Amino acid sequence: MTATSCCSASTSEPATMKTWFDDLTVGDRMTAEGRYAVKREETIAFAEAYDPQLFHLDDAAAEANPVFGRLAASGWHTAAIIGRLTIDHCMQLGLQTLAGGGVDQLRWLAPVYPGDTLTAEVVITELKPSRSKPDRGAVICRATGYNQHGEAVITMLISSIVARRVAD
Amino acid sequence: MTATSCCSASTSEPATMKTWFDDLTVGDRMTAEGRYAVKREETIAFAEAYDPQLFHLDDAAAEANPVFGRLAASGWHTAAIIGRLTIDHCMQLGLQTLAGGGVDQLRWLAPVYPGDTLTAEVVITELKPSRSKPDRGAVICRATGYNQHGEAVITMLISSIVARRVAD
Repeated sequence: MTATSCCSASTSEPATMKTWFDDLTVGDRMTAEGRYAVKREETIAFAEAYDPQLFHLDDAAAEANPVFGRLAASGWHTAAIIGRLTIDHCMQLGLQTLAGGGVDQLRWLAPVYPGDTLTAEVVITELKPSRSKPDRGAVICRATGYNQHGEAVITMLISSIVARRVAD
Repeated sequence: MTATSCCSASTSEPATMKTWFDDLTVGDRMTAEGRYAVKREETIAFAEAYDPQLFHLDDAAAEANPVFGRLAASGWHTAAIIGRLTIDHCMQLGLQTLAGGGVDQLRWLAPVYPGDTLTAEVVITELKPSRSKPDRGAVICRATGYNQHGEAVITMLISSIVARRVAD
């Protein structure tokens, strides 16, 4: 494979292909086809539910904040959006993901504002077959989210548990 | 301080106290007072928006998944919920957070199911005054989420940028 990703498997519209742990190679890189338009209403709703700091909810408070300058999305919201873009791509590939493992080196590099459109790029950095469970392995990839100016807004290493072909 | 946290500052109901970077000590530990009841409807809505893998949406697919066994919350949802519990606590403290910095060593340790009730425990692990900006510093804390059985479901190191007293 020359282009692949890191996350998903099952889908409500099952992919016609199946991609297993064994089909992946370190260095595989993909740009998810999806684009995510960040809407003000959704940004505020997410912040109200999970991150109700005033600079995510109120324009005046955000303007007074020296990092954001204006209303900005919660960092958890940005992470979830980039997760969504990569998961969509993995589902298109039919990647046989069993579960998420973890996240390392997540950095919020620049604010995300309502009106931004985000894209994601993913590269596989490590493949670790399970020593105890021969039917699966850990896929580690670096996911980076960009805004419409090509500026990186988030980067993170995501670890996922993916089934091996033997499990077919 | 003997109990503190890592995340928030501004709040729609401003805290009567203010807590600055300078008020924090490595080792400060707190158990957030909040409890978060994970509801099936919210779990599915979050997954539909940000993590539409079938084992987060469909009971039969979840039962067939060897990790989950039944419908489970998205890992991003679990992270956002534990973020919310810690942020609520920080807002009660009036912590003068400017922004999030990043996340390391996030591990999903056990599935979170609809019907679970989550709590959070936070301990400050590192305090790094900014070398270039004397008005702020990075606060790094380990946040761990537990279910109602006392089982750890997630752990992560969260880095936040917090204002120093000089910024008052």
